[in-house]
Amino acid sequence: MNIIKYPARAEWGDLVKRPQLDVSQLNAVVAEVLAHVKEHGDAAVKGYEQQFDHAVLQDLAVSKAEMDAAETLVSSELKEALALAHRNIAKFHRAQQFESTKVETSRGVTCWQKSVPIEKVGLYIPGGTAPLFSTVLMLATPAKIAGCKEIVLCTPPDSHVRVNPAILMAAKIAGVDKIFKIGGVQAIGAMAYGTESVPKVYKIFGPGNQYVMTAKQQVSLHDVAIDMPAGPSEVCVIADDTCNPAYVAADLLSQAEHGTDSQVLLIATSEEALLAIESETDKQLQRLPRKDMAEKTLTHSRFVLVHDTDEAMALSNAYAPEHLILAVEDAENLSKQVTNAGSVFLGNYACESAGDYASGTNHTLPTHGHATAYSGVNLDSYNRKITFQHLTREGVRSIGKAVVCMAENEQLEAHANAMRIRINDTNP
Amino acid sequence: MNIIKYPARAEWGDLVKRPQLDVSQLNAVVAEVLAHVKEHGDAAVKGYEQQFDHAVLQDLAVSKAEMDAAETLVSSELKEALALAHRNIAKFHRAQQFESTKVETSRGVTCWQKSVPIEKVGLYIPGGTAPLFSTVLMLATPAKIAGCKEIVLCTPPDSHVRVNPAILMAAKIAGVDKIFKIGGVQAIGAMAYGTESVPKVYKIFGPGNQYVMTAKQQVSLHDVAIDMPAGPSEVCVIADDTCNPAYVAADLLSQAEHGTDSQVLLIATSEEALLAIESETDKQLQRLPRKDMAEKTLTHSRFVLVHDTDEAMALSNAYAPEHLILAVEDAENLSKQVTNAGSVFLGNYACESAGDYASGTNHTLPTHGHATAYSGVNLDSYNRKITFQHLTREGVRSIGKAVVCMAENEQLEAHANAMRIRINDTNP
Repeated sequence: MNIIKYPARAEWGDLVKRPQLDVSQLNAVVAEVLAHVKEHGDAAVKGYEQQFDHAVLQDLAVSKAEMDAAETLVSSELKEALALAHRNIAKFHRAQQFESTKVETSRGVTCWQKSVPIEKVGLYIPGGTAPLFSTVLMLATPAKIAGCKEIVLCTPPDSHVRVNPAILMAAKIAGVDKIFKIGGVQAIGAMAYGTESVPKVYKIFGPGNQYVMTAKQQVSLHDVAIDMPAGPSEVCVIADDTCNPAYVAADLLSQAEHGTDSQVLLIATSEEALLAIESETDKQLQRLPRKDMAEKTLTHSRFVLVHDTDEAMALSNAYAPEHLILAVEDAENLSKQVTNAGSVFLGNYACESAGDYASGTNHTLPTHGHATAYSGVNLDSYNRKITFQHLTREGVRSIGKAVVCMAENEQLEAHANAMRIRINDTNP
Repeated sequence: MNIIKYPARAEWGDLVKRPQLDVSQLNAVVAEVLAHVKEHGDAAVKGYEQQFDHAVLQDLAVSKAEMDAAETLVSSELKEALALAHRNIAKFHRAQQFESTKVETSRGVTCWQKSVPIEKVGLYIPGGTAPLFSTVLMLATPAKIAGCKEIVLCTPPDSHVRVNPAILMAAKIAGVDKIFKIGGVQAIGAMAYGTESVPKVYKIFGPGNQYVMTAKQQVSLHDVAIDMPAGPSEVCVIADDTCNPAYVAADLLSQAEHGTDSQVLLIATSEEALLAIESETDKQLQRLPRKDMAEKTLTHSRFVLVHDTDEAMALSNAYAPEHLILAVEDAENLSKQVTNAGSVFLGNYACESAGDYASGTNHTLPTHGHATAYSGVNLDSYNRKITFQHLTREGVRSIGKAVVCMAENEQLEAHANAMRIRINDTNP
């Protein structure tokens, strides 16, 4: 790791910089796959599944028999863990429900918002060696609570045309029943345009590799909304003298094992704590099965020493981390200074993996500095706030003159006229 | 207008279709301007202002003297109207403030959301013959209420290097003080990347022509968030026997005067009402200064006759209009069936221009069918919901085992380990 002691503010720019993510060279190949899926539907999807996942599919949909089989293939210990995680995620997201209140802005003018679920949403769950069933819970649970009518899930099959049973089990627990064995760009295309088998959706959620990310960007320009821009996972830990160096080291390593592009930033207010964390990190690293990957990630990680927690927090806010762990004495107080972060973990017992799986918060969070402008996935992500307004005759008298004046000054005569004829009718 | 009587559901697809908006042919020229602004900052911006707006600028920023002069140039009637509109917009958006509540999801595991303002936002206000000062109020008022620290506004100057005083006055009332005389693609670039004069922002709001729209799309891929995708303005009116045909006609015309690409859809449940609205529309059209434009828009408008209000609402939801006017007997009851719309106007006195200017709702709304997945601008648009979590020792005992089990099954050993060492320390 790179240790940087007391950097001047002028050097912060380099400390918080992310590696450039340029996917533009993928644009042409992704556009071609999307266009082909748009035109040829299921046939195109099946062709790409054969080509990219070596899976020869008759039916794209996961059958009821496969769902039932999954239940017998998943250990009861994992089933219980999934149920507990689902319960907590549901509890936290259910508490985010919006209460509409009517506001009388002027006499006779009443305005309100109503939260209305997006009717059709698509969830993408990547394949690969490790099945990301936790992401199924994170994306499907709030979709169900919001009341989305159509929830479609796409995930790539293996070459035996199977989906990992833990993914199916998580989908079952979260209440998703339209699951398709489709991965990559063809999955994003199928959900964006619809095919004979896959319903078209209005918004697509979920992580993926650079191809999936590029596909999501492309379809978001015209066809569907997406959850947020993607990037490699990140953690920032702020640690003071009261931290447990072994815990902090374990948290840094849990980020480092995600992949060599993962970002790890430690900001310590004490050199002693920093060195203790460094030595603990080295020690724990030796025992990890993904040691090589984590080691590589750590070579570009940064361990920064600063004067105090205020400075630490200012640096963290400049970085805008996806995950922020506050391993400090008065974490709750310090947390009030957070302006840019995805999700924040307070105190020695809140490890990132708690939030990754089962505390109840969502783990689909803004990376790559996007926490400056984006929220992580939450109940709002599955809803729109539609505004409503009602005017009485008195309402016309309250605001009619102002509306006419403003419309005239914007040279929109028909706008003025629409209010003017109502004013004429409501004057005594 | 095109009158369509009792269309079968199979024909609805054509009725709700929007014209294709293909801006891809603008991509290259927009990318070139953006790259030039990114590299050369103020110098590039000034060059484009001279080229596109015929304005030779010394300073890009509007001066204090110009702000003061604006106050004397705007009529007191318009000033009063702006103040009333601002008051109502502020009242409605202030009522949208988020109250954070802590949720104990499992014993010892506490999670909460906090609404945190986006620190730096950019507002774009187009130029042209009619000054869109109302959009200044709509975008700046919630930004101020949210507590955004840096609010930057860009709007093109005329060839005399002046900005319309009504725009400056609206900015003053809304509390915006960093105003730059920059328009078009160069304004979007300046706010996305920052220049010597213009601060870089994290999210850009506001309408614009196809060049501005393309620029917003391009910078949104990597650099900043944007409010929503853009498209031509639209209205759908559902009218029954109880409607006032003259009012409905005036509302349709107020949409038609926006531009020939505006979308106007009338859905009537009675042929008598439909014909009365048609004849009123013809009559009022003759008196409009923008008659030619409105007439052109009306040639591609659709007047659809359906059997009842349920069918009307289903068709409207399939269309997903930006503005929806319910000129029907029991509008409040019918409004409960709205699933896709930007803003809804209830009853005979709520004309669209009420919401365009002064009722208090926001007029920056999703067009082109995007109401299926996007909200209009509201207080949330200027905030992020950051999640927080705190675990006690008991919290570790509540969820620790589930976290370890899930991490192991996702083959993320370091994630499991981060919780495992805490479990070991908290076991009695």
